Amino acid sequence: MVVVMKASATTAEIGNVMQRAEALGAQTQPIYGQDHTVIALIGDLTRVRRETFDAMAGVLKTVRIQDPYKLASRATHPEGTVINVDGIRFGGEEVVVMAGPCSVESRAQIIETAMAVKEAGASVLRGGAFKPRTSPYSFQGLGEEGLKYLAEAREMTGLPVISEVMTIEAIDMVAEYVDILQIGARNMQNYGLLQAVGKAKRPVMLKRGISGEINELLMCAEYILSNGNMEVMLCERGIRTYETATRNTFDLNAIPVLKRSSHLPVVADPAHGTGDWELVPPMSLAAVAAGADALILEVHPDPESAMSDGDQSLKPERFAELMGGLRKVAEAVGRKVASPGEQESVPIDADGRRAVLA
Amino acid sequence: MVVVMKASATTAEIGNVMQRAEALGAQTQPIYGQDHTVIALIGDLTRVRRETFDAMAGVLKTVRIQDPYKLASRATHPEGTVINVDGIRFGGEEVVVMAGPCSVESRAQIIETAMAVKEAGASVLRGGAFKPRTSPYSFQGLGEEGLKYLAEAREMTGLPVISEVMTIEAIDMVAEYVDILQIGARNMQNYGLLQAVGKAKRPVMLKRGISGEINELLMCAEYILSNGNMEVMLCERGIRTYETATRNTFDLNAIPVLKRSSHLPVVADPAHGTGDWELVPPMSLAAVAAGADALILEVHPDPESAMSDGDQSLKPERFAELMGGLRKVAEAVGRKVASPGEQESVPIDADGRRAVLA
Amino acid sequence: MVVVMKASATTAEIGNVMQRAEALGAQTQPIYGQDHTVIALIGDLTRVRRETFDAMAGVLKTVRIQDPYKLASRATHPEGTVINVDGIRFGGEEVVVMAGPCSVESRAQIIETAMAVKEAGASVLRGGAFKPRTSPYSFQGLGEEGLKYLAEAREMTGLPVISEVMTIEAIDMVAEYVDILQIGARNMQNYGLLQAVGKAKRPVMLKRGISGEINELLMCAEYILSNGNMEVMLCERGIRTYETATRNTFDLNAIPVLKRSSHLPVVADPAHGTGDWELVPPMSLAAVAAGADALILEVHPDPESAMSDGDQSLKPERFAELMGGLRKVAEAVGRKVASPGEQESVPIDADGRRAVLA
Amino acid sequence: MVVVMKASATTAEIGNVMQRAEALGAQTQPIYGQDHTVIALIGDLTRVRRETFDAMAGVLKTVRIQDPYKLASRATHPEGTVINVDGIRFGGEEVVVMAGPCSVESRAQIIETAMAVKEAGASVLRGGAFKPRTSPYSFQGLGEEGLKYLAEAREMTGLPVISEVMTIEAIDMVAEYVDILQIGARNMQNYGLLQAVGKAKRPVMLKRGISGEINELLMCAEYILSNGNMEVMLCERGIRTYETATRNTFDLNAIPVLKRSSHLPVVADPAHGTGDWELVPPMSLAAVAAGADALILEVHPDPESAMSDGDQSLKPERFAELMGGLRKVAEAVGRKVASPGEQESVPIDADGRRAVLA
Repeated sequence: MVVVMKASATTAEIGNVMQRAEALGAQTQPIYGQDHTVIALIGDLTRVRRETFDAMAGVLKTVRIQDPYKLASRATHPEGTVINVDGIRFGGEEVVVMAGPCSVESRAQIIETAMAVKEAGASVLRGGAFKPRTSPYSFQGLGEEGLKYLAEAREMTGLPVISEVMTIEAIDMVAEYVDILQIGARNMQNYGLLQAVGKAKRPVMLKRGISGEINELLMCAEYILSNGNMEVMLCERGIRTYETATRNTFDLNAIPVLKRSSHLPVVADPAHGTGDWELVPPMSLAAVAAGADALILEVHPDPESAMSDGDQSLKPERFAELMGGLRKVAEAVGRKVASPGEQESVPIDADGRRAVLA
Repeated sequence: MVVVMKASATTAEIGNVMQRAEALGAQTQPIYGQDHTVIALIGDLTRVRRETFDAMAGVLKTVRIQDPYKLASRATHPEGTVINVDGIRFGGEEVVVMAGPCSVESRAQIIETAMAVKEAGASVLRGGAFKPRTSPYSFQGLGEEGLKYLAEAREMTGLPVISEVMTIEAIDMVAEYVDILQIGARNMQNYGLLQAVGKAKRPVMLKRGISGEINELLMCAEYILSNGNMEVMLCERGIRTYETATRNTFDLNAIPVLKRSSHLPVVADPAHGTGDWELVPPMSLAAVAAGADALILEVHPDPESAMSDGDQSLKPERFAELMGGLRKVAEAVGRKVASPGEQESVPIDADGRRAVLA
Repeated sequence: MVVVMKASATTAEIGNVMQRAEALGAQTQPIYGQDHTVIALIGDLTRVRRETFDAMAGVLKTVRIQDPYKLASRATHPEGTVINVDGIRFGGEEVVVMAGPCSVESRAQIIETAMAVKEAGASVLRGGAFKPRTSPYSFQGLGEEGLKYLAEAREMTGLPVISEVMTIEAIDMVAEYVDILQIGARNMQNYGLLQAVGKAKRPVMLKRGISGEINELLMCAEYILSNGNMEVMLCERGIRTYETATRNTFDLNAIPVLKRSSHLPVVADPAHGTGDWELVPPMSLAAVAAGADALILEVHPDPESAMSDGDQSLKPERFAELMGGLRKVAEAVGRKVASPGEQESVPIDADGRRAVLA
Repeated sequence: MVVVMKASATTAEIGNVMQRAEALGAQTQPIYGQDHTVIALIGDLTRVRRETFDAMAGVLKTVRIQDPYKLASRATHPEGTVINVDGIRFGGEEVVVMAGPCSVESRAQIIETAMAVKEAGASVLRGGAFKPRTSPYSFQGLGEEGLKYLAEAREMTGLPVISEVMTIEAIDMVAEYVDILQIGARNMQNYGLLQAVGKAKRPVMLKRGISGEINELLMCAEYILSNGNMEVMLCERGIRTYETATRNTFDLNAIPVLKRSSHLPVVADPAHGTGDWELVPPMSLAAVAAGADALILEVHPDPESAMSDGDQSLKPERFAELMGGLRKVAEAVGRKVASPGEQESVPIDADGRRAVLA
């Protein structure tokens, strides 16, 4: 860490900063510039916090040198992590396409959609059973009933399933039905929930909050990793900016930045990223070109009747068309789209739960 | 609601929109402009959702006419709500000052600070026992032990206490010790938590998320109100923008906008709003001039040693000086600062809990 | 236009709005909803401005239905515009790559770079002679001398040249040397300059301002088009958001949004968009996948010695490698990269000016 | 400056950075931390640019220690600057109120408004003769005719006049009629214009761009100051954020930040800052409480008929009421509102120009 003193800082103030740093276990090295004195803190900084120094008299600002995350960092883990979900590999050479409706609305709807997305080539099924909604008066999801339908769709298609979990209490139950736990954007900094999924035995897809900095997303992943769950994927899903032509600003730059900073697989969510189904195909192609390891897409047999996010959902035939384009772009960047044929059907018990937990 | 059709929309597409709206129970009124046809939806819109129409062929966009919130709206509740906490009135003529440390760090620290802020004129004591922290490696608060110290400080000073609750499970416990439940910015859209405090028997101060729109803040208040808890205060604490000269952009405009849109009391938090103790005094004065009903401020006897937020905390003597300024500005806008002398000490039992729950 | 009245609006206030609208030549159609009355304004709206109504008593808000731009709109010009610059076609099937240094620094530097980028496959040469710099103490460009070197490089390579013009007075001079006039992001709303290049006889590439809305960019294009110059290209180059991991947030979503809203060719500038040369290759591939008609890239033989933007410039060998990737992605989306071989060398006179003006 | 090397940087890369810095005249001091090496650059940094180092192999990032501005900095000029305009002092103890219509629309309108604002207590008259408009089809101002009316209004009331100048060519002409030159937000980074008003013999009010960082605003002031004009005022007028409840986010935090960083007087513009006349009174009071040296307000006798910005203009009677509130708040913070009675009428010649130029 570097502490920059004000031009007006007194010798006593400089001395105080050095003393305080040393009392906290750090070594100090002052550098006397033309206007400003700068104090470098090196050695053991475990007890050093920036705030301490930002609050001291004579200090202009502090500058952090090291990344605040460790387990998520590529510096400490140069090889990319590959997460294997029932034979589907995230973070490897193949690009994984996850698809399905925003919300599970009925048994028929999820099964029809699962069949359609598998036929088009998706290898993971998505579907929300618990829905965070801006309005308390909106449809909040089918809950456990929706999870049962998802599990049934998995048994019929062999596609692993991803679904959101919103509360600590629901983790165990959701984990019994699904293969990947999704943490939604609104919960990116719900630290209790992060710690709890850090102890779950399921891979986690963590979505970037609507105003999450990339560094913060990595710190949130750190909450999960440091609780023991090393299977974390990071998902870019659009940030909030001044631009209103798109619902959010889908920040594709995050993809190469995350790949450079971290070893974790990176997923792109162009449906939420743009909020506009017409933009989903070009932005999906762009995400793969930018290096995304996976896509998560919204497909609905009848978007106009969807109980949520119909405006950003593709019809099955458009999705199938997009899959064709994705295969070409994946190849152009030296990858290929993962195929759904490789995994086996996962049996469920009479209650719809996975017969055997991983 | 108004549905704007594309210039290229066909008669059939216009017909489909009208049919769908009517099937959902609305009445429709088409308006044929020079380029665009616009369809107004009136009558009973309870089953109408914008997404349905945004997903339909030929639709350019939809425009909402009514506010999505009802219970929080001033339109449905023209009189300002006054919330009485042990005799301290939020939303009335008086401006309430809440002050104390960011985190409760020890018994001595919270009692010393409580004495100091009371003497300077604060009428509510703040202090965090559960702390949401960006890093899993940072101090996370003293937990229930911190709440006990807060309760003890309340008994000694008579100051009601506000403290943050972060999880559903902790609500009952926190509510036993404190007078006002705080929902932090990161949890503004943690809907499960909002619903649960909506059933708690304590007033709630809801903080605006770092990227929360004012309308979204009101929708989140609606989650609490619609669960039966009508004692909600809204707190502006800074939003995330491109400007980095301040940690956040403290959005004072939100104060008159919220007062105009809602009947709920509005609190300003300049410490988190700016992240810089030097800016806290001018922005506190400005918040009162803009119409804030209350301020929440960070005061620490030794900011440099604070375990969190030392850089935005005032020393007790600066706080006392600021109180003098606040009294003058409050008077200039026809109000006065609430005095701590009016309430009585609240007895606690042997466990530090309030002897009688409201 | 639609005028939404407050729930509390009186009959007189509603009447006033209708009267005012009719006095300005519009027809009015009131719609009486449950809470709000809405007044649709149709017919001739040439004299109607939103502000008039926003300022009236009883008005909640106004909603614009029609796009404010006409000449730039795809609605009025469904076919995409193709701009032919010495045989290089922008907006057609081919993807045009423009490359060169941020600043022209010397005769040798620009000629060496021009040779290198042509060999790698670029078909237009970029280079700044007039540089807008944040600091008055920074290098401001070589001025006309730089333009002469650019013209010489064009004569040697046959590559058409693009360069920025910053002031009205300089337009004629710059237009004598270059083939495409660039309007920089800081000047997006410099209306006098826009009007002036609207009268110039050169195609114009207009960059989106760092906080320009897509609609505003199109309005600025309208300033140029309405002055008679129909050869305008729109350039996305990154917007300012809260995220600091990249210098700007390169908004790729703007590419399909602009292609949908407008018939003008769209250029992507990943170097300024990200400010980080490591991110330029993946984001260039992504831009082509998203539908960009052209790229503008920074290439410098020795980025570390560059007088500006070295940190976002590619070395010639990396650029050549990127060109290979671009060809593959272009093909994957059904296009091809324009080749520099097709155009002929453009002779210049003794002063370095184009011998014949278009 | 501090150069932070990557954790993976080689000894050779570290050596290259030090050599390059020394070749540019700096002294270097390496600090070897646990993961990262940091190189401090001290001494003469006039030839050192961050970009050079950001482009070098092994460099993670560079950190600037010194402010990039000198003449605008309070560090180099601890006393606040007071600018005297015909006896009205900006930056002293008094708070100056400037008021008038957005646009000069007619002789009668500007004279009526000038009389009204003077009577209410404003001490400077504002009015736009050249208007930057988002649409090329909007009213663009009366031009020189408008300036003549302004000068006439000044002669009748004695109020000095402020008006915007948009082009270099117009500076001399505008300076003949007005007392303060305004540079609008869209031109904050129009460097040619800044340099030119830097040579003009009139005080300049420089508005912060809609996405201008505070540091950039100060760098733009530096462009004016470094050209010899030391009479510069800085104006906060709202920034662009994601929030749409207000047209812009009026950033009051900028006021104390600017006062701390710079010696130049600070003006607040709540009309543009919020875009909503109902918010102008509370935010004007807040601006004075936060430490603004002056306010610039829009007053129009008939806002609904205004040719621009009617929605953010006050009627004269509301303005008079606000003046009463401003006097109280100014007093509460130890200042007073400047009175218009102190200055003398400034004679104009037959052409409406100021008889004697300063």
